[in-house]
Amino acid sequence: MAFRLLMRINPRALIILSLLVFSGVLYVGASTSPIVVFVFCICTLSLFFSLYLTKWVLAKDEGPPEMSEISDAIRDGAEGFFRTQYGTISKMALILAFVILGIYLFRTTTPQQEASGLGRATLAYITVASFLLGALCSGIAGFVGMWVSVRANVRVSSAARRSAREALQIAVRAGGFSAIVVVCMAVFGVAILYSTFYVWLGVDSPGSMKVTDLPLLLVGYGFGASFVALFAQLGGGIFTKAADVGADLVGKVEQGIPEDDPRNPAVIADLVGDNVGDCAARGADLFESIAAEIISAMILGGTMAQRCKIEDPSGFILFPLVVHSFDLVVSSVGILSIRGTRDSGLISPIEDPMAIMQKGYSITIMLAVLTFGASTRWLLYTEQAPSAWLNFALCGLVGIITAYAFVWISKYYTDYKHEPVRLLALSSSTGHGTNIIAGVSLGMESTALPVLVISVAIISAYWLGQTSGLVDESGNPAGGLFGTAVATMGMLSTAGYVLTMDMFGPIADNAGGIVEMSQQPESVREITDVLDAVGNTTKATTKGFAIGSAGLASFLLFSAYMDEVASFAQLPFKEVDIAVPEIFVGGLLGSMLIFLFSAWACSAVGKTAQEVVNEVRRQFIERPGIMDYKEKPDYGRCVAIVASASLREMIKPGALAIISPMAVGVVFRILGHSTGRPLLGAKVVASLLMFATVAGILMALFMNTAGGAWDNAKKYIETGALGGKGSEAHKAAVTGDTVGDPFKDTAGPSLHVLIKMLATITLVMAPIFL
Amino acid sequence: MAFRLLMRINPRALIILSLLVFSGVLYVGASTSPIVVFVFCICTLSLFFSLYLTKWVLAKDEGPPEMSEISDAIRDGAEGFFRTQYGTISKMALILAFVILGIYLFRTTTPQQEASGLGRATLAYITVASFLLGALCSGIAGFVGMWVSVRANVRVSSAARRSAREALQIAVRAGGFSAIVVVCMAVFGVAILYSTFYVWLGVDSPGSMKVTDLPLLLVGYGFGASFVALFAQLGGGIFTKAADVGADLVGKVEQGIPEDDPRNPAVIADLVGDNVGDCAARGADLFESIAAEIISAMILGGTMAQRCKIEDPSGFILFPLVVHSFDLVVSSVGILSIRGTRDSGLISPIEDPMAIMQKGYSITIMLAVLTFGASTRWLLYTEQAPSAWLNFALCGLVGIITAYAFVWISKYYTDYKHEPVRLLALSSSTGHGTNIIAGVSLGMESTALPVLVISVAIISAYWLGQTSGLVDESGNPAGGLFGTAVATMGMLSTAGYVLTMDMFGPIADNAGGIVEMSQQPESVREITDVLDAVGNTTKATTKGFAIGSAGLASFLLFSAYMDEVASFAQLPFKEVDIAVPEIFVGGLLGSMLIFLFSAWACSAVGKTAQEVVNEVRRQFIERPGIMDYKEKPDYGRCVAIVASASLREMIKPGALAIISPMAVGVVFRILGHSTGRPLLGAKVVASLLMFATVAGILMALFMNTAGGAWDNAKKYIETGALGGKGSEAHKAAVTGDTVGDPFKDTAGPSLHVLIKMLATITLVMAPIFL
Repeated sequence: MAFRLLMRINPRALIILSLLVFSGVLYVGASTSPIVVFVFCICTLSLFFSLYLTKWVLAKDEGPPEMSEISDAIRDGAEGFFRTQYGTISKMALILAFVILGIYLFRTTTPQQEASGLGRATLAYITVASFLLGALCSGIAGFVGMWVSVRANVRVSSAARRSAREALQIAVRAGGFSAIVVVCMAVFGVAILYSTFYVWLGVDSPGSMKVTDLPLLLVGYGFGASFVALFAQLGGGIFTKAADVGADLVGKVEQGIPEDDPRNPAVIADLVGDNVGDCAARGADLFESIAAEIISAMILGGTMAQRCKIEDPSGFILFPLVVHSFDLVVSSVGILSIRGTRDSGLISPIEDPMAIMQKGYSITIMLAVLTFGASTRWLLYTEQAPSAWLNFALCGLVGIITAYAFVWISKYYTDYKHEPVRLLALSSSTGHGTNIIAGVSLGMESTALPVLVISVAIISAYWLGQTSGLVDESGNPAGGLFGTAVATMGMLSTAGYVLTMDMFGPIADNAGGIVEMSQQPESVREITDVLDAVGNTTKATTKGFAIGSAGLASFLLFSAYMDEVASFAQLPFKEVDIAVPEIFVGGLLGSMLIFLFSAWACSAVGKTAQEVVNEVRRQFIERPGIMDYKEKPDYGRCVAIVASASLREMIKPGALAIISPMAVGVVFRILGHSTGRPLLGAKVVASLLMFATVAGILMALFMNTAGGAWDNAKKYIETGALGGKGSEAHKAAVTGDTVGDPFKDTAGPSLHVLIKMLATITLVMAPIFL
Repeated sequence: MAFRLLMRINPRALIILSLLVFSGVLYVGASTSPIVVFVFCICTLSLFFSLYLTKWVLAKDEGPPEMSEISDAIRDGAEGFFRTQYGTISKMALILAFVILGIYLFRTTTPQQEASGLGRATLAYITVASFLLGALCSGIAGFVGMWVSVRANVRVSSAARRSAREALQIAVRAGGFSAIVVVCMAVFGVAILYSTFYVWLGVDSPGSMKVTDLPLLLVGYGFGASFVALFAQLGGGIFTKAADVGADLVGKVEQGIPEDDPRNPAVIADLVGDNVGDCAARGADLFESIAAEIISAMILGGTMAQRCKIEDPSGFILFPLVVHSFDLVVSSVGILSIRGTRDSGLISPIEDPMAIMQKGYSITIMLAVLTFGASTRWLLYTEQAPSAWLNFALCGLVGIITAYAFVWISKYYTDYKHEPVRLLALSSSTGHGTNIIAGVSLGMESTALPVLVISVAIISAYWLGQTSGLVDESGNPAGGLFGTAVATMGMLSTAGYVLTMDMFGPIADNAGGIVEMSQQPESVREITDVLDAVGNTTKATTKGFAIGSAGLASFLLFSAYMDEVASFAQLPFKEVDIAVPEIFVGGLLGSMLIFLFSAWACSAVGKTAQEVVNEVRRQFIERPGIMDYKEKPDYGRCVAIVASASLREMIKPGALAIISPMAVGVVFRILGHSTGRPLLGAKVVASLLMFATVAGILMALFMNTAGGAWDNAKKYIETGALGGKGSEAHKAAVTGDTVGDPFKDTAGPSLHVLIKMLATITLVMAPIFL
């Protein structure tokens, strides 16, 4: 609505307004730190760059009318669902905002806060405002992802009639647009909040709060972002996969018509789903990853700077913002490195698009290593420990290598060029059952290497931090956790490019659908098929990336949580001892939460898919003309069914995720107070959080990889292997693909968000556990 | 071999020899404590009772020659595999014994041990001897289970021609025989070891070790038991399910012949599998559960008695042995309560066998409550805290209620009388894919209630223990952990009867196979079908029971491990703090271990099943006469293929389970020593253990329930629902069943054993982590 309002205003007035707002923001930034000004400038430039990308994409033609007609239907469906879904989410967010307000108005404040003049009411408003801003930005991130994708899809289809390379370039630039906007918003949002609070609260002036305590006020932003992302991912994930499974089960299996055939009544719902599920939801997911990671790293940087009595702590606090500013720059270079060919031949010979994308990734990573090193030297140099910056630069390198390893491992397990997927395809030849058993084993086995990589990363980054030379008052090394934080930033230092690769997937998928539905010649379909397969692999690899960074960010927020609780309770909170029965039980409950959440997410897809199956069967029976192209199926009804079902089904798992940590905390708080252990509630929640993180990482890895592998095993057979399309092996592989759908696109990515939401909700709700 | 040797001796000489051994044992027992004498007497009586049960079962007729011919083939296959499998396992056990010996000969001894004259060599020999004895007893437990089952199966089939009730009674009594022997051996073995060490080491005499330290010497026994059980379960589980899946995929799906049809070349392998996988392996599993739980409770009882300075600690230490002696008594009553009807009509109208079994369970549980209360008053009464016994009696009640709740929850999720399985069956009607999605969701959802129950049980038993009035020197309550231990004993206080219900399943399954293969009339088949379905439910419910007790026992062994490490290292080891990165990584690795282990266990079944599929397909092609009953299939080849494949495939997951905790411990020990944290290795292993326990409980619950539910959803459709046999829904349900097979009979039960083995291996290997 706000968007439409903006659209109606005179453009010139809008420009003047923006300029005014921008100079206000710049003034606030300048009063805070020159580093913030640098961040603002880079973000603004990147926004202009993203505008250029949109213009470039929108300038492409929409193809013949039969294409744009389909594309219009998809756009209407997606935008309609988006409106309803975000309407529901904003109502829930408002209710939660009141709950937070209530809790903060009745909580006790810490002596430090009182000393710095930060009253109970101020704190309450700050937290609620951050929460709402986070929620709003997360919503915008989702909207932008969808907005561009429903416009780019038809342009990619149209370009596929001319050249594979051009189609690829459009899809990449459209993905790049939303990736840049998402990263920009995360950085901009945090930076604006930070500098506003800085100026408003008169930080660092005598009698006010210290700058090192400031980042803790931003956690509301992270919580708002993850709250919206959770429901966006759940609702979108259920939508897309219920439509997909339902369409496949009747269309492919029962009626024997190909994928995305215009006769299938659920096909538009399926194509709409790609946009709301993959584009919108992944935009919100990565937005929230980056925001959570920036905030946790800022908190840890502040805490460490304070403990080590570093004179000017602003470098350590603002470091994450700078890293992501450079992320914007290097990712833009990576996106631009993927160019169309100059010759304007009708259809160019198909090159391997994966190789082109990987070349771009390599360029981005190399640049990221350089800029990361430069940023550590610029911001983390301190005379107390002159070589500390070098250690932190190495931490960043650890993170970048980890990211690369995650991408490589996911590719190994999900690409049909490698052995695992080939063996999976082979197991389809002995039946549906052996295919499922092999896929489940493959998924579970694939958790091993990422866990080993992340273990080595955590320990080595921690060790590099500890040996950086930074010591606290009593001479103990104090840089370990910050080292882990820097590694996390290293991992996310190419987030823009990775998100681009991810967004590329659903756009290519949609383009393929439009080509099929508008009955283009086989050669065009071939081009979009190749792009679609590449999109599947990039989607799977970015999921590995997302879960790795979610795990690390959650581990960091966990220490922030312990600091927060200790400062509220005025009691030392140094350890979470799982040998205590109650704390062990907390862990048991946390792991169980992951299983129950996954169960509900999967069964939501299953149930909704059954509704779709029944509706599609009904249409085929009641309108026999559909199969001969004489009658048009009622696409709208399927869209409506999936939309209302997914809005209904997203509530149960979402509510579970939000209510259960709070309930566990309150129950054990009461138990603790009655047995004389005041921190029991907080400790049980900490244990719940850690066990849930571990179980969530493993479950998400399992589900994402198994799903991706099943999908590609099917695609491998469709290339003609083991009997090809229509063979018994192919049928078994389709079953595997159907099972993998809710795994990889509903439960799996929802778990990424869940992990981070748990970490932020415990931070924001900490007062009620005490 | 030893068995055959015994058989050859003159029976009279054997009796005299046994009497001599028995009086020797009794003398040792009498020198230890009158309680031990009581335990010995009950065990001896129970062994006589079990002899009576065998005689009764063996006195039944073996039916017509076509039945006994099949039964002979099954017996030969089972005994052949057992010999080879246990040959391999004993070789591995011997190697491990040498490794333990080496470790213990080079380890340091604690000052207490030196003071009590317990030298390094003595300790090494004691540990190795306990390990080997535990391994041997576990092997015998497995052997007994299989021995009776391959003899009872044909007698049950034969009785099914006359009366359902008689068939039920034979199956129950045969199961009862092995259950009683298994429990007896666990109690007897621990009691003999305990009293031998007591007398040999001159415990409690001046200058010797204290009786409260004695139970720690028994951990080798638990490790030996779990080591053998792990490989028995893995090998047997792979055998049975590979044969089952392979037979079903070609027989049922491709050729359309019914289950257990004599034309299927893999049918004998399938029936052999029931015996080696379900009977032998579950015997070893429960043997090891009981042994581990007795030892951990003895350790905790001793530790608590010492901390609270209780004058006569023997009651607290020997309490578990008495509880299980009463278990033998009440279970025997329960087994006898299931009677044949007096009328000798040809085929009696089928009553609900489940109701009969449950009535027996109710009788057993009621008696167990009474005897448990009496034992607490007898052994746990101390003048220091006169009402403590009452609290502990309540702890026992908590355990008994927990066991009942577990059995009820598993029944709810796996019995087709209830909604979950009905919905699962309904989801088969929309295809293979939705069936698998629904089954996976059902399994994951089913983890929630058991986790809540076990959480309440742990906390309430701990609280009851803490408030029992027992306090340590400084006045702090000290009975909490022992309270949890008592609850675990309460849970296992009907183990004999539960194991009987479990053993009943495969015997009934086998009997059904023999009836089908010998082509008996439909009415006989109906009887064995009903018994088989009941067996499926009891098998699923006892798995719930086994995993619940495994989780509790592991939690207890965990505290024993912390005490052990503290006493070795002479350093306080009070907490396992997951906020430390290395310890968090330990947890990550522990959870990953569960996923990887499950993956390898499932894929072993998948791979072996593919070999079976190829062999069966080959036989059908090369011997076309098989289908017209003109040619006999080569059953032996399938048995040989499955046997050799399962022996090969059990090594990888088994080695993973044994090597990884040791490797992690040693790596972090080195890291810890180089960074000045001497306990780091031990703490990381502790965290690995706890996270693996939690993940293992959840994964096992998921796999067992999903597998059971799929199996029964298929059975429900076979009763005629949703189109009945041969419908599309039935085909989808068969796929679900196939996927569930390795879940519920290979990976799931192996995880029970794995959890306990991890707990005992860390205890025994503790010296290398320091």
